[in-house]
Amino acid sequence: MKILFLGDVMGRAGRAAVAARLPKLRDDWRLDFVVVNGENASSGMGLTGEHAKGLLDAGADCVTLGDHAFDQKDMLQFIETEPRVIRPLNFAKTAPGKGARLFSARNGRKVLVTQVLGQVFMKRAFDDPFSAVDTALKTHPLGGTASAVVVDIHCEATSEKMALGHFCDGRASLVVGTHTHVPTGDARVLPGGTGYLTDAGMCGDYDSVIGMDKAEPMRRFITGMAKTRFTPALGEATLSGVLVETDDATGKARTIRMVRLGGRLQEATP
Amino acid sequence: MKILFLGDVMGRAGRAAVAARLPKLRDDWRLDFVVVNGENASSGMGLTGEHAKGLLDAGADCVTLGDHAFDQKDMLQFIETEPRVIRPLNFAKTAPGKGARLFSARNGRKVLVTQVLGQVFMKRAFDDPFSAVDTALKTHPLGGTASAVVVDIHCEATSEKMALGHFCDGRASLVVGTHTHVPTGDARVLPGGTGYLTDAGMCGDYDSVIGMDKAEPMRRFITGMAKTRFTPALGEATLSGVLVETDDATGKARTIRMVRLGGRLQEATP
Amino acid sequence: MKILFLGDVMGRAGRAAVAARLPKLRDDWRLDFVVVNGENASSGMGLTGEHAKGLLDAGADCVTLGDHAFDQKDMLQFIETEPRVIRPLNFAKTAPGKGARLFSARNGRKVLVTQVLGQVFMKRAFDDPFSAVDTALKTHPLGGTASAVVVDIHCEATSEKMALGHFCDGRASLVVGTHTHVPTGDARVLPGGTGYLTDAGMCGDYDSVIGMDKAEPMRRFITGMAKTRFTPALGEATLSGVLVETDDATGKARTIRMVRLGGRLQEATP
Amino acid sequence: MKILFLGDVMGRAGRAAVAARLPKLRDDWRLDFVVVNGENASSGMGLTGEHAKGLLDAGADCVTLGDHAFDQKDMLQFIETEPRVIRPLNFAKTAPGKGARLFSARNGRKVLVTQVLGQVFMKRAFDDPFSAVDTALKTHPLGGTASAVVVDIHCEATSEKMALGHFCDGRASLVVGTHTHVPTGDARVLPGGTGYLTDAGMCGDYDSVIGMDKAEPMRRFITGMAKTRFTPALGEATLSGVLVETDDATGKARTIRMVRLGGRLQEATP
Ligand SMILES: [Fe+2]
Ligand SMILES: [Fe+2]
Ligand SMILES: [Fe+2]
Ligand SMILES: [Fe+2]
Ligand SMILES: [Fe+2]
Ligand SMILES: [Fe+2]
Ligand SMILES: [Fe+2]
Ligand SMILES: [Fe+2]
Repeated sequence: MKILFLGDVMGRAGRAAVAARLPKLRDDWRLDFVVVNGENASSGMGLTGEHAKGLLDAGADCVTLGDHAFDQKDMLQFIETEPRVIRPLNFAKTAPGKGARLFSARNGRKVLVTQVLGQVFMKRAFDDPFSAVDTALKTHPLGGTASAVVVDIHCEATSEKMALGHFCDGRASLVVGTHTHVPTGDARVLPGGTGYLTDAGMCGDYDSVIGMDKAEPMRRFITGMAKTRFTPALGEATLSGVLVETDDATGKARTIRMVRLGGRLQEATP
Repeated sequence: MKILFLGDVMGRAGRAAVAARLPKLRDDWRLDFVVVNGENASSGMGLTGEHAKGLLDAGADCVTLGDHAFDQKDMLQFIETEPRVIRPLNFAKTAPGKGARLFSARNGRKVLVTQVLGQVFMKRAFDDPFSAVDTALKTHPLGGTASAVVVDIHCEATSEKMALGHFCDGRASLVVGTHTHVPTGDARVLPGGTGYLTDAGMCGDYDSVIGMDKAEPMRRFITGMAKTRFTPALGEATLSGVLVETDDATGKARTIRMVRLGGRLQEATP
Repeated sequence: MKILFLGDVMGRAGRAAVAARLPKLRDDWRLDFVVVNGENASSGMGLTGEHAKGLLDAGADCVTLGDHAFDQKDMLQFIETEPRVIRPLNFAKTAPGKGARLFSARNGRKVLVTQVLGQVFMKRAFDDPFSAVDTALKTHPLGGTASAVVVDIHCEATSEKMALGHFCDGRASLVVGTHTHVPTGDARVLPGGTGYLTDAGMCGDYDSVIGMDKAEPMRRFITGMAKTRFTPALGEATLSGVLVETDDATGKARTIRMVRLGGRLQEATP
Repeated sequence: MKILFLGDVMGRAGRAAVAARLPKLRDDWRLDFVVVNGENASSGMGLTGEHAKGLLDAGADCVTLGDHAFDQKDMLQFIETEPRVIRPLNFAKTAPGKGARLFSARNGRKVLVTQVLGQVFMKRAFDDPFSAVDTALKTHPLGGTASAVVVDIHCEATSEKMALGHFCDGRASLVVGTHTHVPTGDARVLPGGTGYLTDAGMCGDYDSVIGMDKAEPMRRFITGMAKTRFTPALGEATLSGVLVETDDATGKARTIRMVRLGGRLQEATP
């Protein structure tokens, strides 16, 4: 089974790149399942229902969120009507929507997708992601009710991401980080058979500060003074993510490859 | 001019990989200058004088440090006797050693190396890195007294690293991040001619939690309880870093390529 | 019912002040129940079984801990043998000991004591304290199975402490903060009848940096460089805490008064 | 010389309490100099020029700010026209206004007022406050060009505040903390003669979460979800601060007393 995961879609530039490229990639690469992280697709902060529909229409089977899950208030309602949008399991006890769900891929196989937020260096506090993901993985075991399992670990610290990767090793097809907006180059299959990448990077304009127009964040870093809001950079986006191929019998990863297409970064294709 | 930068050397495994591979790389790749980040080379915490010598003997022209600069107390004296070791410019007003220095490469050209610590998500506070690096870059301008300039930005946050990259664009040959111990896949030449990579990754065993033996950090993440100290993982290290080729006339980057050799990660060579 | 709560006992100086003064205070002030926070009693970091016994022998009916709960490793076993030591409810899923317990005061009445850790500005992550304390308060309702309820909120941020105070208002006799080692001057009875104080302060030498000998923390702040470990300051300790008098019928607070005795601070007695 | 320092004025309730009470206090207590921290006087976030005028008209000789210094954008211009407003010395290299100034008290004596921001647990990074305050204290030495010296240390951590207090001991008449919005009960004269209080508390409604209407901050703590903005609580404010009496010959503190007037807290008057 071939599963593509695309990192945080950043504003209009990111949405445009997904809309322009994903339909063709689904065919060219014979993708069985596509997950797209959409937490920054709307003005760089959160995801509206309309933009979620756009990502799904472009070919995402599932859209994950992050710490910005409900920055766009209409997601509070929308997520209850659209089961293909997944918010972090440990976002808040009262959050609407779900943090894990068993999807049917187009080939009929079942894919569990879940997302958790880390606790290290995050702007606010979240409960323990390890026990949360553990429960989700036990509900739909890989090779049992789930033919494939994708875990999106949305956090800052490389230590927490690597630890969660090992924690899920053998129980997930793919553990992939999001949130830092920079793709890492450490894609590999862990000893137990889980495909792992510390961060998928963003689908956004890399001539920026993590997807935001450079001027204001640089002003703040250099002068210590804020002047305006952040707005997404509008240059051509790089589609950034990871492709994992799983063994149909076990659900484990056979291969994992970085994906970078378009924009400013060096191209990487499977 | 060909400049190799290797990321945080992690414990014995990292030192062994540098000693085993760097001498041959210097010849095979006709390297003109080599910088190695050594802040974790001794037990994963800091750098002893003896281990600094080992890195220099293996072929480093310059060894940079980081927030762990003086975890090994003998570095407080050693750095005053060994000008090839560079600590962060903004470590502390009273820190021994230097945070920037003009080196002579083996081809006779002058290379400015400087390191700064970031302020975002660090365990303790450091003064503004932007004004610090600005001063260093003005002292030895690229294409002026410096034929090449290497800036090691040692910090956690991708936003701060990208902002510093843009801040130095056109004034440095290479801005490369360290500290997260995971290589990023975003190597590129910025519009002004500066080679940029968000993080060089570590020279260490990636079957680990950022270079530390997995058992204890995973225990802490999973159970919330500490039991022992952290010790470096001892499996085969991956040499991880970046190779930049500069234009001799301007000092700007012509090409930049990720380097990953050995160990658990997918190989990347220029 | 008269309940005395004493803040973080800091090292030998703090233990000595408790041993010297608490037995007499129990009599003089006709105390019905005494809670002492002991998280820093042993070398300023954690609490040994022996030192816990010392605090209990001096007149504490209950000893609470904090983020340093198990810095002294023998507490991992000791807490299982001594039910009068209470650790934070949300310390870790696997922590030994209990985070809430119904005590019998010397007058025969039942007192619930519970402790939670905050999430804001703490050195590591803990799960949501609000839902944790909510469960404890529902298990032994004030005016039901509990004649009095004491909640120790161990955290840094004043916002989190005040919010937890309001959250417990009407359901606890006393909500008192610990951890910052500085007594606050905002003792009052909240509208619902809960006695509240943002921080009890420490039982330690205030000619110090939060109870530690000044030299090393000041060196670190001023020079940015560490030289040695922290050790507790050894000057005369101030006993610091709060006295709440409850209504026997409802368990609510009638009065709340700050307590400061000895050492460097201005004396406050009920 | 009698100097009154009032802590962070919080919104309309705080401004009203200052306007209602300060003029009479100046007379009744024969105050020679009054400093008021105004960083939250306008909607709880920053200070407008108009509200700054209001505090000055009510009897403040100097208004200090804090991390919220320029949340109200018109302060960027206003501070250049009103030398009685002091921003933190280490706010940012490019900040308008001044961080230290020698004032003339009504009795003709010179009073140096300076403010610094701490580095621990703050939402963004600031440069070293210790070296900044050191320079200010050397420019106008106590007992030299300054008959009295007031240092406002605006930060979260009690450790940093106590360390700065000791650092200034003997060189300032008063070191007083602001920012946490809760008054501490540790007023004392340090061994070298400096009056010290860890936090002055806020001039605001204490039936709140640090001065903000309880509903929204409690929702966020309890449910993990935000709904609206924060707005200042509007109940009667407590005037909260500290009164220090200095020796005219040396400028050192003779006595220091907490001040709490009105609202929800227990009254404290000199
Ligand atoms: Fe995020
Ligand atoms: Fe994101
Ligand atoms: Fe580091
Ligand atoms: Fe490192
Ligand atoms: Fe604590
Ligand atoms: Fe403590
Ligand atoms: Fe404030
Ligand atoms: Fe503040």
